[in-house]
Amino acid sequence: MTIYADNAATTKMSKTAVDAMLPYLTECYGNPSSLYTAGQKAKEALEKAREEIAALIGAQPREILFTSGGSEADNQAIRSAAENGKRKGKTHIVSTAFEHHAVLHTLKKLEREGFEVTLLDVHENGIVTAEEVGAAIRDDTCLVTVMTANNEIGTIQPIREIGAVCRARGVPFHTDAVQAVGHLPIDVGADNIDLLSASAHKFHGPKGVGFLYAKRGFPLSTLIEGGAQERGKRAGTENVAGVAAMAAALKESVSHMEENAERMRALRDKLIAGLSEIPHSALNGDARCRLPGNVNFCFEGIEGESLLLLLDDRGICASSGSACTSGSLDPSHVLLAIGRVHDVAHGSLRLSIGEDTTDEEIDYMIQNVKEVVEKLRSFSPVWRDLVAGKAKFIL
Amino acid sequence: MTIYADNAATTKMSKTAVDAMLPYLTECYGNPSSLYTAGQKAKEALEKAREEIAALIGAQPREILFTSGGSEADNQAIRSAAENGKRKGKTHIVSTAFEHHAVLHTLKKLEREGFEVTLLDVHENGIVTAEEVGAAIRDDTCLVTVMTANNEIGTIQPIREIGAVCRARGVPFHTDAVQAVGHLPIDVGADNIDLLSASAHKFHGPKGVGFLYAKRGFPLSTLIEGGAQERGKRAGTENVAGVAAMAAALKESVSHMEENAERMRALRDKLIAGLSEIPHSALNGDARCRLPGNVNFCFEGIEGESLLLLLDDRGICASSGSACTSGSLDPSHVLLAIGRVHDVAHGSLRLSIGEDTTDEEIDYMIQNVKEVVEKLRSFSPVWRDLVAGKAKFIL
Repeated sequence: MTIYADNAATTKMSKTAVDAMLPYLTECYGNPSSLYTAGQKAKEALEKAREEIAALIGAQPREILFTSGGSEADNQAIRSAAENGKRKGKTHIVSTAFEHHAVLHTLKKLEREGFEVTLLDVHENGIVTAEEVGAAIRDDTCLVTVMTANNEIGTIQPIREIGAVCRARGVPFHTDAVQAVGHLPIDVGADNIDLLSASAHKFHGPKGVGFLYAKRGFPLSTLIEGGAQERGKRAGTENVAGVAAMAAALKESVSHMEENAERMRALRDKLIAGLSEIPHSALNGDARCRLPGNVNFCFEGIEGESLLLLLDDRGICASSGSACTSGSLDPSHVLLAIGRVHDVAHGSLRLSIGEDTTDEEIDYMIQNVKEVVEKLRSFSPVWRDLVAGKAKFIL
Repeated sequence: MTIYADNAATTKMSKTAVDAMLPYLTECYGNPSSLYTAGQKAKEALEKAREEIAALIGAQPREILFTSGGSEADNQAIRSAAENGKRKGKTHIVSTAFEHHAVLHTLKKLEREGFEVTLLDVHENGIVTAEEVGAAIRDDTCLVTVMTANNEIGTIQPIREIGAVCRARGVPFHTDAVQAVGHLPIDVGADNIDLLSASAHKFHGPKGVGFLYAKRGFPLSTLIEGGAQERGKRAGTENVAGVAAMAAALKESVSHMEENAERMRALRDKLIAGLSEIPHSALNGDARCRLPGNVNFCFEGIEGESLLLLLDDRGICASSGSACTSGSLDPSHVLLAIGRVHDVAHGSLRLSIGEDTTDEEIDYMIQNVKEVVEKLRSFSPVWRDLVAGKAKFIL
């Protein structure tokens, strides 16, 4: 049995998305910038995808810029807002301590260039409030960037309220919605969003393609200079096949969003209930205000990496947090941000289920995580000290 | 009959490349940063592709960085060299007037940031010499960037000699080899190259993926910040399927390079000979020192765009120059750089043939270009003035 429970890292492409991609890999391979018929057909596919994607998030087609993925979109959004701000003498940015590294590292770079960044603390439940964002905004704030849903613990932020606070203060609002697009309803108008980043492979599209929504009139800076593609804001021959697949995948995800979310939430809650029976364990992030597919636990006295290896051996694909930082020995900055101490943060497990996950797979995961945690604890000197009272339990 | 003669704009994916791509779109979809088996399989595919690509250009695997295409690679290469230079107080860059816009626009941006750029004139034959490059290098030069082969007129630059001059002067050498990789032999060691950009869709790989070669020890700056992918130099979940297809496409292109080039050169020369029979026409760029598939002509008294539309109507996919700048009303900066006057530059036609082009297609193209040029001239007031002696022929 193989159970893929790492949908937050990447998803399997849907058949619909693969089918939408293939014609542009083989027969319809023209360059969309070319004048002849074959080029114009590719151009039409690109613009049709742009219209579809725009409609699915309440945007206009001209507000959608295709990128190579979520990280590029995050970089371009934040840099654009920063450069606009600088021109007006505004060099302060508000964000949170548990953003994705595509946001945090871009902010770090901007700090080195003279910007000042306020990273809001995140509550234990993995949520920041609109009031806290509002209180951090200053007269020289040029950007607020808060993710729609966290990539590790899945907690959903009050985006609409945060957007309203930003709009009232005249500050552009960017949201990294990489984990949310295709999984949660998004309406850039009602949600008061100026800039939004998304990535196709998180909603059953291909890797290597994403998009940036930028509200009409928002002056985008260019990250990749060159040809006049994407209205001069993103150079490089367009990834027509990838874009067509992204649109098809998003359309499918959004059209089944409600029913999928309902099913997944029930499975997620069953998984959370099952894992909660493990002694000295704790769910990370709010139990209800989280992505339908996200389960993230800390288990005291064990090491996340060993846990993953044993689970892999039993056919369960899981992660300890963000795939982007695996290989790093540091504990997750997200878990530290919500107040987990280092030792506990090291023993984390993220199981992100998908639309295909079955009830039987949930049972299998509960059973096997229980066994593996027990096994690892039986070998763990840290656990032995805890049980012997030589160290104090935290969870 | 449909003849695709715009292989410089983009190529049809090879069956080999599509076949190499599909498994990573469907079954093997893990995130290469994940620890479990499915992730590690994706990682292995990525590293195998890196090894193969490196070997095909005489590089080491760790010197290959995957990007979203040639433009991104150009941007990152140039910005890296500029930032390194700045740290040493070196802010002068040498390039040529007929580089791709991914290079020229990046240089323009650097000028606004305080860098000084020397753009070398290009000879009428579309070639710059190593001596000219050498003469432009100064003590504060931090980068020389000269393309391997021009994207519009196909002329091949003396890269090895230019690289040798740069190396002797201790100046990093970047080459935009987007048109060359897969079509001309490249050996980054023997060619004295420090940085090289390539794009998969120019050699029958997919759009939306490319690579940057950076000689070991060359300090790369990051264009897209975020996760630790690509040794921390290029964030974002890796486009595994695209990369696997790129490696397969390059392997195939390189293994048949000699025989393909020989065939294509013969067809190219036949096409050039045929089109040369059109009165008041001229081949752009050197007749011999050009890409095996590139034919680029100017025809006096006509408008390139009308020519393309009529050729499209006869099933011929062609371009007037770079696909990236189509839609622009300005004449090609490349043709201006080799000394064509505005009016003549407007009447340009690029036919870039491929490995599949047949002798019959060459005959068809000669016949039809002749007819269409004649037809357009019969409607052209400019041509009438030329024939009546009211204006002077240039070609």
